Amino acid sequence: MRTINIGLIGLGTVGMGVYDAIKDSGELISRKMGVSVAIKGVCDKDKALLDSVDPAVCPLKTTSADELISDGDIDIIVELIGGIDPAKEIILSALKNGKHVVTANKALLSGCWKEIFDTAAQNEVTVNFEASVGGAIPIIRTLRESFVANKINTIYGILNGTTNFILTEMSEKGTSFDEALSVAQEKGIAEKDPEMDISGKDSAHKLAILSLLGFGVNISNEDIYTEGIADISPEDIKNAAKWGYSVKLLAIAKSTSLGLQLRVHPTLIKSSRLLSDVKGADNAIFVRGDLVGESFLFGKGAGRKPTASSVVGDIVDIAANIATSSEGKSLPYNVNYARDKKNIKRMEEICIPCYLRFSVVDKPGVLASISSVLAENGISIASVSQEERKEGEIVPVIILTYAAEEGSMRKAIEKIDSQDYVKDKTVVIRIEE
Amino acid sequence: MRTINIGLIGLGTVGMGVYDAIKDSGELISRKMGVSVAIKGVCDKDKALLDSVDPAVCPLKTTSADELISDGDIDIIVELIGGIDPAKEIILSALKNGKHVVTANKALLSGCWKEIFDTAAQNEVTVNFEASVGGAIPIIRTLRESFVANKINTIYGILNGTTNFILTEMSEKGTSFDEALSVAQEKGIAEKDPEMDISGKDSAHKLAILSLLGFGVNISNEDIYTEGIADISPEDIKNAAKWGYSVKLLAIAKSTSLGLQLRVHPTLIKSSRLLSDVKGADNAIFVRGDLVGESFLFGKGAGRKPTASSVVGDIVDIAANIATSSEGKSLPYNVNYARDKKNIKRMEEICIPCYLRFSVVDKPGVLASISSVLAENGISIASVSQEERKEGEIVPVIILTYAAEEGSMRKAIEKIDSQDYVKDKTVVIRIEE
Repeated sequence: MRTINIGLIGLGTVGMGVYDAIKDSGELISRKMGVSVAIKGVCDKDKALLDSVDPAVCPLKTTSADELISDGDIDIIVELIGGIDPAKEIILSALKNGKHVVTANKALLSGCWKEIFDTAAQNEVTVNFEASVGGAIPIIRTLRESFVANKINTIYGILNGTTNFILTEMSEKGTSFDEALSVAQEKGIAEKDPEMDISGKDSAHKLAILSLLGFGVNISNEDIYTEGIADISPEDIKNAAKWGYSVKLLAIAKSTSLGLQLRVHPTLIKSSRLLSDVKGADNAIFVRGDLVGESFLFGKGAGRKPTASSVVGDIVDIAANIATSSEGKSLPYNVNYARDKKNIKRMEEICIPCYLRFSVVDKPGVLASISSVLAENGISIASVSQEERKEGEIVPVIILTYAAEEGSMRKAIEKIDSQDYVKDKTVVIRIEE
Repeated sequence: MRTINIGLIGLGTVGMGVYDAIKDSGELISRKMGVSVAIKGVCDKDKALLDSVDPAVCPLKTTSADELISDGDIDIIVELIGGIDPAKEIILSALKNGKHVVTANKALLSGCWKEIFDTAAQNEVTVNFEASVGGAIPIIRTLRESFVANKINTIYGILNGTTNFILTEMSEKGTSFDEALSVAQEKGIAEKDPEMDISGKDSAHKLAILSLLGFGVNISNEDIYTEGIADISPEDIKNAAKWGYSVKLLAIAKSTSLGLQLRVHPTLIKSSRLLSDVKGADNAIFVRGDLVGESFLFGKGAGRKPTASSVVGDIVDIAANIATSSEGKSLPYNVNYARDKKNIKRMEEICIPCYLRFSVVDKPGVLASISSVLAENGISIASVSQEERKEGEIVPVIILTYAAEEGSMRKAIEKIDSQDYVKDKTVVIRIEE
């Protein structure tokens, strides 16, 4: 049995998870697959981390990525440092050196996929990236391989565990966004600087990767309308629940005859939907294709072991290819496919039903005024609720609308917010039926 | 771009679905994967079906499987006739002729997997079988590849759409099993002879395949305790709902330190669980592994297009291997792995909580008698309900127990059922917490 050697770059949480998984499951993998995977070298700038690696498991420890990339015994470079710099140079250099690459780097892939996959194709090597989206959820392999014969119609899901944890906490305990974020940070679920997660950018990076695979169009992160969860209040979550909805940060990609919709924003979804049951830091992805119909995948979205599981799955995939003498070559997926001119619908043109919360002085004529501005802009009301009535005080008025063009909605809200009976910025949360 | 030729044997619902999918999506597949798949030949004993095939799509139509198997241009034989005979001979003969095989045949694979995979390994060809379990759900690929580094702990799910449709119908409309079965037959969801489905055997075949992949043990269908849904009444479904449970036919495989549990039976599961939301003919599978944690896959469990999607995914997988010069070789998965001596726990030894419905004459001392027989057998009561009290009439007494050994439970029920206050066979439905 030939041993396939890997070089592991980046010994953070996931990197150490991969090290442990190969150390612990190497024998299981070779029994299952008839192929042996070994860690030939590890690289990290932190010498204490290098010291924690058992030399009996991995003979080569270095602070220089080049040393692994130029090592003739190494078949696969596993990049787990994240971010663009120096990950991009490391991956490109590895590919040019004929190494296969496994990475979990969503920021890099979503931003520079073309350069990376072109380089891989030129050098006839494989780039696997299952762990870049959805942690342990096998969504990349499913879209690339299992659903290959499908015209994908819709991909959407909860792609960020941190924000889902915060929204779940707010929903179950009635806490504010800031309180829930603190809890997430205490538990290590949110980072000290949580910007990438709570702004929705992390979800947008992942959606870009899924859209590349699903729709074969040349997407960049800028093509995705992105809105985070910082403005969601426990009040809105409570109101949504009254109407049978949960509030989730959804990443949504829909292919329609009018173009592709790409958006990340807080969303009201019916509590009866499977996605609504996804709690805490879990992730879930819904895919609709012309053959498979509706498909739903749920799992751990992050964390040492779940992410390591996907990385090792990717490593073994390449190792099995090498062992069956195809030298790990894979077809240049998407480099040919994702060349289509993109026809991405402008957010302003998309029709979506909305939840609106107006903070108004409760006096006669307010609801009539709001309704008439909505009507002027072609927005139909589905339900209204104004529970407490204390003449002269500020009260919330909740309106659920039917689908309306985003541009019209913005115009209407701007006009309403300029009225003197409106005392706070109107909250708008889109609804997904 | 090299064209990979397939020979399609069996032009039933799924076979025609595969024909359509390749005809309609061939161009999409070649753009995605850089590999071209063509139907070189089709085989069916029904000449009318052969006539419905467009000669421009497929040049060779035959009633002889051998003609396709011996055709030098054909790379992959797709077997979609189902059953053991003649499917087994066709597959073995194709493998011996150096053809790769794609099949959806769960009865054959679960019964004869060793012979088939040994023959494939000897001839260095691949057998793919994603469509054999869970229709469009990519569970085979996920267990084999994505989760390869995991020690799988639990696999369970709704693996049969017909029975799930019947139970959903009974639950939503309060109809009897017989009525719900008739509806399923009218809609083409149940076959005229529904025995394989309603007896749980179809689920057991699928569970055997998943257990082979997940646990690497030498399992045969006989190792799986199997109980169908014909005895479930709408009354039990209603009672379960009162306690917050749904009734589902679950296929369950659990690896414990005391051995492997393998069982298919109607099961009460908490309505808050994702599996409980799986309605109609849909399927869903839950997998727990040491790295991935909890993972859940949902999708269409059967039907022309969803099944064809998985079959074509399998075809393209082999085609891509051939195109990258590994000649479609794959590692002899499971032939090495699934050699372990099986340590399958006897059903009698397994501890499971139960729902019990006793039909008793309502007279003093009955509950005391039932409770004391349960206590004698070491069975603890979690809840009791006896709603209507009409002295002397037959009333249902419902008891939910804590986990108790199946053997003790059977002994207790046998003793209780022999009492003269018991007027009908006691209903026992196991609970999965």
